[in-house]
Amino acid sequence: MTVESLRSPTAAQAQRAPTSEGVARAGAKIAALLPPTPLLPLELPSGATVWCKAESLQPIGAFKIRGAWHRLTDLDENERKRGVIGVSSGNHAQGVAWAARRLGIPATIVMPTDAPQVKLANTRALGAEVVLYDRPGGEDRDEVAARLVAERGATLVHAYADPWVIEGQGTVGIEIAAQMIADGLARAGGPPTRIVACCGGGGLSAGLALACPDAEIVPVEPEGWDDVRLSLETGEIQRVPADAPPTACDALQTPATRPINFAILKARCAYGVAVSPAEVRAAQNYAFDRLHLVLEPGGAAALAAVLAGTVPTDGRTAVTLTGGNVDAAAFAKVLASTG
Amino acid sequence: MTVESLRSPTAAQAQRAPTSEGVARAGAKIAALLPPTPLLPLELPSGATVWCKAESLQPIGAFKIRGAWHRLTDLDENERKRGVIGVSSGNHAQGVAWAARRLGIPATIVMPTDAPQVKLANTRALGAEVVLYDRPGGEDRDEVAARLVAERGATLVHAYADPWVIEGQGTVGIEIAAQMIADGLARAGGPPTRIVACCGGGGLSAGLALACPDAEIVPVEPEGWDDVRLSLETGEIQRVPADAPPTACDALQTPATRPINFAILKARCAYGVAVSPAEVRAAQNYAFDRLHLVLEPGGAAALAAVLAGTVPTDGRTAVTLTGGNVDAAAFAKVLASTG
Repeated sequence: MTVESLRSPTAAQAQRAPTSEGVARAGAKIAALLPPTPLLPLELPSGATVWCKAESLQPIGAFKIRGAWHRLTDLDENERKRGVIGVSSGNHAQGVAWAARRLGIPATIVMPTDAPQVKLANTRALGAEVVLYDRPGGEDRDEVAARLVAERGATLVHAYADPWVIEGQGTVGIEIAAQMIADGLARAGGPPTRIVACCGGGGLSAGLALACPDAEIVPVEPEGWDDVRLSLETGEIQRVPADAPPTACDALQTPATRPINFAILKARCAYGVAVSPAEVRAAQNYAFDRLHLVLEPGGAAALAAVLAGTVPTDGRTAVTLTGGNVDAAAFAKVLASTG
Repeated sequence: MTVESLRSPTAAQAQRAPTSEGVARAGAKIAALLPPTPLLPLELPSGATVWCKAESLQPIGAFKIRGAWHRLTDLDENERKRGVIGVSSGNHAQGVAWAARRLGIPATIVMPTDAPQVKLANTRALGAEVVLYDRPGGEDRDEVAARLVAERGATLVHAYADPWVIEGQGTVGIEIAAQMIADGLARAGGPPTRIVACCGGGGLSAGLALACPDAEIVPVEPEGWDDVRLSLETGEIQRVPADAPPTACDALQTPATRPINFAILKARCAYGVAVSPAEVRAAQNYAFDRLHLVLEPGGAAALAAVLAGTVPTDGRTAVTLTGGNVDAAAFAKVLASTG
């Protein structure tokens, strides 16, 4: 059996387009596995109320558990035996590791040497093998992963350019819509007209677009890493330049979106926006004060955009709070950053 | 109309005993008002899993919204016009203020001069009048409140010695039981056999006892303020000594429980426990790391007891995380307190 024959089924399947039906199927699997994360009303200084989806409260502290679970549960018995490979700065890593442990599948995660310590430790604690690559030195993580896939015949679970992963992340949108429609004095009274999403490679944004066909989807990226914003502006996939500035939003630090994501984003997102480091810190502090939630920088990007007024909040606006995996020392500095 | 006649209906009603039926009635009101807060599984370093009720995610950042809502919605039209008086270091204050604003009832809150700034600011932001008393100087808050009640004919909503408040806080237990019984791979699979409760005056502990008649209820207090623990040990209500040490657990800083609470606690709680300042900080840090939740010191007391091994975790143990209202500077210090 050649390496190519081992890889081909997965490679072929990965070419399929993600669908709304796939999101619904993933939604049923997630509903059987995990309770919905809370959707918390938040009054902004402007007086507007937005609806915050607290995905930082997932067992791994991030929404990535959704796509990983949908992908891994669809692997056949032979694929499960050969294991899975993930590539991630930490949240997708933990999502894949969590799902793999629960399903008894061997998992190897390719992580950057400069990932937050808490993410490295948590991924290892979930039983995954961690293979480090030199992100600051410019080593290509996809090449490292491809080598492992070839060597082991394992299935690559890409962090965003994978139809299952996109569908799985879209289940955030299913829950948001159900929670906003639900009765109750403290609820929104209708489905979201806009969802503001923290955006790295565009897996979540594409999934939300499939889940909520009537809502405007606004991807938010950190300044200097706003390739999706530029791609939407120019109509073609743009890469983050090699000399991009450092960012605290490690979870959103992706070099470029991929055609499988961009095909959906181009059709559904009128624009993307970028947020500054100070805007991200302000959002982390606002979530601390008002929601008593710990958000990592990348998990606060969408909130940063609505707080800064970069994205409007008319209609019924939902905001994804995508992750809370941040080192204590880094978070203490953020708390000190505003008087 | 004399002051006494204005006060008497409330005074008489306040003598009724809280009941399980009252908890159920309060539960229906709360279910119509607010979605249940999440019940999050948490693995302890011992390997045991406990079920954490994240009441810090309530709109006011604490469970106190429950008892206040149950009390205020049961006031008649005349009582509503004359307003309500609360006495609180902050969380009950915000609960009463939140419910009063929503119902259009004037609210006055008696708060200590040394309450956390965030609690004073939030209570005022909710539209309540704040009357300060000198807690460090030994001024009696109940006397201040009694004077306001006499002057205004308002209804006193006591923070814990009130049958409505006890019943309302008990709705935490209804939600815990429903969530632990619910199906799903990540759930507990049965109602709680033990609920560990942060305890000040004993309102929550008494309410939980009424809500969950088959569960062991364990009240947890800060060291030096463990009058309920001592009262259970001696069988009679004990007061905190005048020279009690300072505690970061401002929410649990009550001088003594009351007969309306102790009658239930004595019948249902085999024992209470005390936690040290270091154990409380460790619990705040553990909740930060593993749950990505911001807990105030008093809100972390129950978790501190299970982490320290002071309360067992066999069976199905639920832990209340009662509040998250903590100043950023104070929380940053807690984060720095462990490596």
